[in-house]
Amino acid sequence: MDHFPNLSFASDYMEGAHPAIMQRLAETNLLQSAGYGTDEFSEAARRKVRTACRAPEADVYFLVGGTQANATVIGALLKSYQGVLAPASAHINVHEAGAIELGGHRVITLPHTDGKLSAETVLAALAAYDEDETREHTVMPGMVYISQPTETGMLYSLAELQAISDVCRMYGLPLYVDGARLAYALACPENDVTLADLARLCDVFYIGGTKCGALFGEAVVIPQHGFIPHFFSIIKQHGALLAKGRICALQFDALFTDGLYDTIGRTAIEAADRIRTALREAGYREAYPSPTNQIFVLLDKEKARRIAERVELSFSENVDETHCVIRFVTSWATTGENVDRLIRVLKEE
Amino acid sequence: MDHFPNLSFASDYMEGAHPAIMQRLAETNLLQSAGYGTDEFSEAARRKVRTACRAPEADVYFLVGGTQANATVIGALLKSYQGVLAPASAHINVHEAGAIELGGHRVITLPHTDGKLSAETVLAALAAYDEDETREHTVMPGMVYISQPTETGMLYSLAELQAISDVCRMYGLPLYVDGARLAYALACPENDVTLADLARLCDVFYIGGTKCGALFGEAVVIPQHGFIPHFFSIIKQHGALLAKGRICALQFDALFTDGLYDTIGRTAIEAADRIRTALREAGYREAYPSPTNQIFVLLDKEKARRIAERVELSFSENVDETHCVIRFVTSWATTGENVDRLIRVLKEE
Amino acid sequence: MDHFPNLSFASDYMEGAHPAIMQRLAETNLLQSAGYGTDEFSEAARRKVRTACRAPEADVYFLVGGTQANATVIGALLKSYQGVLAPASAHINVHEAGAIELGGHRVITLPHTDGKLSAETVLAALAAYDEDETREHTVMPGMVYISQPTETGMLYSLAELQAISDVCRMYGLPLYVDGARLAYALACPENDVTLADLARLCDVFYIGGTKCGALFGEAVVIPQHGFIPHFFSIIKQHGALLAKGRICALQFDALFTDGLYDTIGRTAIEAADRIRTALREAGYREAYPSPTNQIFVLLDKEKARRIAERVELSFSENVDETHCVIRFVTSWATTGENVDRLIRVLKEE
Amino acid sequence: MDHFPNLSFASDYMEGAHPAIMQRLAETNLLQSAGYGTDEFSEAARRKVRTACRAPEADVYFLVGGTQANATVIGALLKSYQGVLAPASAHINVHEAGAIELGGHRVITLPHTDGKLSAETVLAALAAYDEDETREHTVMPGMVYISQPTETGMLYSLAELQAISDVCRMYGLPLYVDGARLAYALACPENDVTLADLARLCDVFYIGGTKCGALFGEAVVIPQHGFIPHFFSIIKQHGALLAKGRICALQFDALFTDGLYDTIGRTAIEAADRIRTALREAGYREAYPSPTNQIFVLLDKEKARRIAERVELSFSENVDETHCVIRFVTSWATTGENVDRLIRVLKEE
Repeated sequence: MDHFPNLSFASDYMEGAHPAIMQRLAETNLLQSAGYGTDEFSEAARRKVRTACRAPEADVYFLVGGTQANATVIGALLKSYQGVLAPASAHINVHEAGAIELGGHRVITLPHTDGKLSAETVLAALAAYDEDETREHTVMPGMVYISQPTETGMLYSLAELQAISDVCRMYGLPLYVDGARLAYALACPENDVTLADLARLCDVFYIGGTKCGALFGEAVVIPQHGFIPHFFSIIKQHGALLAKGRICALQFDALFTDGLYDTIGRTAIEAADRIRTALREAGYREAYPSPTNQIFVLLDKEKARRIAERVELSFSENVDETHCVIRFVTSWATTGENVDRLIRVLKEE
Repeated sequence: MDHFPNLSFASDYMEGAHPAIMQRLAETNLLQSAGYGTDEFSEAARRKVRTACRAPEADVYFLVGGTQANATVIGALLKSYQGVLAPASAHINVHEAGAIELGGHRVITLPHTDGKLSAETVLAALAAYDEDETREHTVMPGMVYISQPTETGMLYSLAELQAISDVCRMYGLPLYVDGARLAYALACPENDVTLADLARLCDVFYIGGTKCGALFGEAVVIPQHGFIPHFFSIIKQHGALLAKGRICALQFDALFTDGLYDTIGRTAIEAADRIRTALREAGYREAYPSPTNQIFVLLDKEKARRIAERVELSFSENVDETHCVIRFVTSWATTGENVDRLIRVLKEE
Repeated sequence: MDHFPNLSFASDYMEGAHPAIMQRLAETNLLQSAGYGTDEFSEAARRKVRTACRAPEADVYFLVGGTQANATVIGALLKSYQGVLAPASAHINVHEAGAIELGGHRVITLPHTDGKLSAETVLAALAAYDEDETREHTVMPGMVYISQPTETGMLYSLAELQAISDVCRMYGLPLYVDGARLAYALACPENDVTLADLARLCDVFYIGGTKCGALFGEAVVIPQHGFIPHFFSIIKQHGALLAKGRICALQFDALFTDGLYDTIGRTAIEAADRIRTALREAGYREAYPSPTNQIFVLLDKEKARRIAERVELSFSENVDETHCVIRFVTSWATTGENVDRLIRVLKEE
Repeated sequence: MDHFPNLSFASDYMEGAHPAIMQRLAETNLLQSAGYGTDEFSEAARRKVRTACRAPEADVYFLVGGTQANATVIGALLKSYQGVLAPASAHINVHEAGAIELGGHRVITLPHTDGKLSAETVLAALAAYDEDETREHTVMPGMVYISQPTETGMLYSLAELQAISDVCRMYGLPLYVDGARLAYALACPENDVTLADLARLCDVFYIGGTKCGALFGEAVVIPQHGFIPHFFSIIKQHGALLAKGRICALQFDALFTDGLYDTIGRTAIEAADRIRTALREAGYREAYPSPTNQIFVLLDKEKARRIAERVELSFSENVDETHCVIRFVTSWATTGENVDRLIRVLKEE
């Protein structure tokens, strides 16, 4: 069976949508509206996103998925001869099947710590480009891409983000933040980066819906109005323009009504924190000190195999002959009962 | 107001989804499944599509939208130095913002009648290429793109489609049919092309969902299993892979359960036929003899202006100083009451 | 035999280079210089081109061939979502194997007369785009491409070029002129467009070398310094940067020394004029009233066949069952003796 | 002054062409021939290249430059969703300004030793791809690119090349060898890889002309006839088709007449060997044990500065605060007298 009636911590996109979102879609279903995001539902959702980001002038676009959003934004920001600076672990480098290159651009990979770039690393890369006498024969850095949280669930602090933003602005490079799992960053007690901070420090970022309770959808936020001219056409050219644009917008309307986006994040983080506590008590070792909704555990393969027989997982990475890393992911849909069951499994194995 | 509480025949993508689809999404909403279309819901939907197409070996993929499906399929079928033959009126040539060119390919436009290519036109283009002594300096035709129905609602007959298919096979060129509004073709009394015919005569086609009752989604059918190797990666590279693939698949599951796709088409065609009859009785002239759910009326601009004050329309094209073409579109959601109201307007003006 | 010891009017790129060019290459052959056009020979050639164009601030780049120059310039001028307006007969549309599309852009073809666009046609296309309510779903016109002379040897007058330039500037679109055979335009008595006019009215143009006496090479002129930032890297990215850049530059140095480019053009035009006079006297019909170095003759196929047995030709186009068009091309290398021989053939057949 | 009348070891593309090449161009200059490499001169040159490679069936194409050849070949060999495996130091990764990405493909970089990939590294990369459960979300390796010699002048032995070829064939991946400086590899006493070996073990390779005595030009060799269908059109689409194709071909005709390509290589290697001997005697340290025409010397910056005042160099790389690497390059044009002068400088500083 492919849909797991039992215990699963495989990912945060295994269910449909948060019931409040389903409700919003159902109640508007037979109303008529114009297409392509030019409707009043979409406009209302954009207003809510702007308010949440304290960015009253922001351009907001609702795209269907993360790879699509990344390819469209990066294709819009780069000149033909430029590449995007990113940590080697970046989603655009690892798991987007060459979508950036299809658009004609290189992902210029940089060293990172747990998926995080430092301002120093970015600065060094830009300085190295400037000092390279053969730079006109190389790919020019044209923007910076990072994720909050990273692929392994880590967070940039406000100070770290500010520092990267400062370097970008000094060099005139747009900073773009991929927020596929942003709800889970925002809800972390450790987190000190707000949506308003992102709007202040980034040139473009997206607020993830697909992995944060929506059926699908990512809200691309461009804080400075008009920063990307003709972005509508660019979205269309990338095959990323939804005819019934409202279907995406309505979901973000729900996510930004009555604090749902926060609630979704908090639910997942509380579940993850309970699991983390149990893991520590049972003597497990975390592979990365992730405070968000992904927990990476380093353990011996035999034990991993036994756990995987009882819990649905989707990620396993070999570390050496006898050890591997497995991942538990919580979400808005994780129940306390299932957390209890998982903790039981972890203690028994 | 952007969502029209009143009378609208602007398009067939103004509502959400057919209630049966909303029902299917709601009832499965909290079930868990694997991502990216590898789940059992997606497999079930694929089986239903295969059955409907009498193509038991077909590869079936669910994509989000039409431009996306076209760019992905065409990018997959063409070699880097090839272009796609299409009528000049084709959606890929007119309204996709250069998505095909972004992928590196030319749309090679051919003359057409009401949006339809003839087998003779395709043959002539291929023969001209073969006879051109400078052909190695030109763009090589690599496939043929047509729509059923066309942009202006016209149908290919089975004989016409067979003839185009024969030319394509003689020359070894894939034939691809864009079925954005396929339900409305299939439901026409005039139509003699079945899904099974499409599966037999095309190399790839898509069954439209977005404009035929779904929230979004197009089912790409590749009748011959394995005809496009690595199509999954190609979809991913085009940013067209839905994380919660089941959300698209479940909608097609519903569309191909209890004949819903047929019902949707029939509802729209019956409404359109009633409007067409009223138009003729009232002495209006149709711009194209479309038998599907789009009706194009040629009339003087003053009259068009008056009608547009009372009925929401989205399409108007100038013909000369004093005349224009307006369009009425029906759909699965068109009610008999609104058809009555429209007919009243048409008779009064 | 492939190199024709006998009578040939097949094209203007059948020999090596004008002897003065060979002489310049030979006398500098063992001198050393820096690569990639950063050397003093290249700088000297740029100065001569600037002087000839009365464009003291111009950026000048030497590229190897016409398709390469077109793809590189057009790729540099267009945004990702834009296309290039061009007559349907344009080289970029007909004989460049999809090089512009490989770079991600559409060639937006316009109607023309003998390969010439009119300002009215350009204006109409731009106005139609502006008035199209769906324009954001279409390919945005981003620049204008024309050729001087056209593919069939016709000339834009200064008034015509000025009018097109005016439209382009009104709409903020760059105007680019492909001058593959520019020498033959400049040398025509009918011509009233100088290099200085091109520099004044265009944003980019290229002065053809390959078909005008060089071994190869086209001088891309950008009258306004800095108009295309990072053009060096764009050239490199297009594989269009010659390591020994001086080899191309030295040829243009020779072409713009002692009026060689004029001499080359004049030699070809005088030969073509003698042939045209003989054709009229012998009752032949010209297919286009070309005043440049290409002469297109409309005649019955049998006669064409007989001529082709005695004269090497490379172009023949069927007009109807019994008629075709053949082409005679003169060049800097055409001798008076061979013109006499051709005239004899034309009179005898 | 940019052309160095004095002592220069900056690169191997500072002069025009070997006098035998200039002679061949001069003596054929006024002969007429067909364009685009369809002429008899080109055919004769192809025959000579086939003979030299003992590859009687090989397709041979003459392209203008290395970046152009790489972009064209790689664009032809890869499917849209594939990338090219290459050492991180590869020219396509470092110094081609994103030409491969412009064509839509990723350069998948691998660890290397002095620019050389090992068969084990390639095998590990291919195995890792096969074992990656998420591989359909990643860029698929589609071919392998290496250089002989490498960027730092190192050689693959026949055994090493054979091993890489074996891995490629086991996995069905084309192997492509960039031979920009191939003459200098072939002439090395240490070298045991012949042109015939390359033809046997690679799917495509190119024999460098630009850096080996030609004005410009690289001979792309495809040992198996028809391995790349429509390569002519692909070349044209990349703007890489020379109108006067013979100008490139005649140079390779000369290079493969009377052993000129060997002579050119030997002249450079003998000069380099004399310099290497002198360096060792004078106690200098080589940064890489290159046996070809590039010598990389590690020394303190002050000494490097003093040498650079007396000898023209083009390459300098910082190693640490006080040390750097400088490069001496010899060529077919290096005279014994200048080698003596350089040795004197090295001993005096």
